[in-house]
Amino acid sequence: MKKESGIILALDVTDKEKALEVSKAVGDIVDAVKVNYPLALSCGLEIVTELSKSAHIICDFKVADIPNTNRLIVEQAFKAGAGGIIVHGFVGHDSVESCVEHAKGGDVFVVTEMSHPGGQEFTAKVAEDLVQVAIDAKATGVIAPATRPERLKLIRERLPDNMVVLSPGVGAQGGKITDVFDAGADYAIIGRAIYDAEDPRKAAESFVEELKASK
Amino acid sequence: MKKESGIILALDVTDKEKALEVSKAVGDIVDAVKVNYPLALSCGLEIVTELSKSAHIICDFKVADIPNTNRLIVEQAFKAGAGGIIVHGFVGHDSVESCVEHAKGGDVFVVTEMSHPGGQEFTAKVAEDLVQVAIDAKATGVIAPATRPERLKLIRERLPDNMVVLSPGVGAQGGKITDVFDAGADYAIIGRAIYDAEDPRKAAESFVEELKASK
Repeated sequence: MKKESGIILALDVTDKEKALEVSKAVGDIVDAVKVNYPLALSCGLEIVTELSKSAHIICDFKVADIPNTNRLIVEQAFKAGAGGIIVHGFVGHDSVESCVEHAKGGDVFVVTEMSHPGGQEFTAKVAEDLVQVAIDAKATGVIAPATRPERLKLIRERLPDNMVVLSPGVGAQGGKITDVFDAGADYAIIGRAIYDAEDPRKAAESFVEELKASK
Repeated sequence: MKKESGIILALDVTDKEKALEVSKAVGDIVDAVKVNYPLALSCGLEIVTELSKSAHIICDFKVADIPNTNRLIVEQAFKAGAGGIIVHGFVGHDSVESCVEHAKGGDVFVVTEMSHPGGQEFTAKVAEDLVQVAIDAKATGVIAPATRPERLKLIRERLPDNMVVLSPGVGAQGGKITDVFDAGADYAIIGRAIYDAEDPRKAAESFVEELKASK
């Protein structure tokens, strides 16, 4: 993905019809659709293939295993049609490097500090080291929390300019899209505020307008 | 799972026929069969259901997300027929507690120190804290490396007696089954040395005999 301000839909649903309906409604407006394990397990990896027909798919699999197992997961995600994958840095350089190598040019995003309370216990304490893992492994970018703008800013400062920052926490979780970009994120990850909206397309459009107005 | 010495097959294959064949051959000898994401993604979660007919299944999904996503993954694994699940502790107490709560009496094992080189970078440094997460969350037990017996011993000492230790690294990775039990593991996780053997059943039986002889 290019380094530019944009919007990613977190398609955090497990129902196939709902997933296809929302993705079809907003696929041409958002820059990517993020698919997590609950959806992929509920529908099979075929859902990635199907969704990829109308949107750029990022598999949010929080890949966190030894290098060889990571390789097998990454290979299957891209084979199914993913354009990117989200992996954990906590498992170390070799595990992340394996993901980047086997993504074969596809995007790899490394999780740094996580935004839930438990994310403060371990990930936040080594967030800068996790950023370094992403840099060393030549990942596309990192995931950093929009709900903690001062932390996001610090993580952004550590990254080379060409690396991309994706930030969850906009909309239902309380973050403002303008704050997210001000703090240095490139893409805002938005979930419920789009897929649970009465009119998901209208909701996505209003975020895009807010984004344009902030430029 | 009960706290007793036993053997777990790591079914690290992605081919459905091979998985079913090996599991059927050894399902009544080993105490459990561990299924990882590459297999579940390649075959769909139905493979867990099918394998659970002839063996006790532990889903090695290294679950590592926020509490609500963890809940959805755990619910689907157990609904598919898993008897246990492996989760990461570094995502913090709330994420692990969510897994234990939604396993509803099924087994939850928490990853502590990982055995690959990258496991030394982050997980090894906080291994004792990860053990504490497992204890606090009332998990069934932990995963600790047989390839580092002195570390396994330390992790075992931190755990209450009723908690179970599963250890990978026996067989093809060089660990001896007797060393693993001596260091305090309850179950030895064995992969290639069984599923890649010319006769997987015979290979599993010889491990069981080795185990009995060591008692």
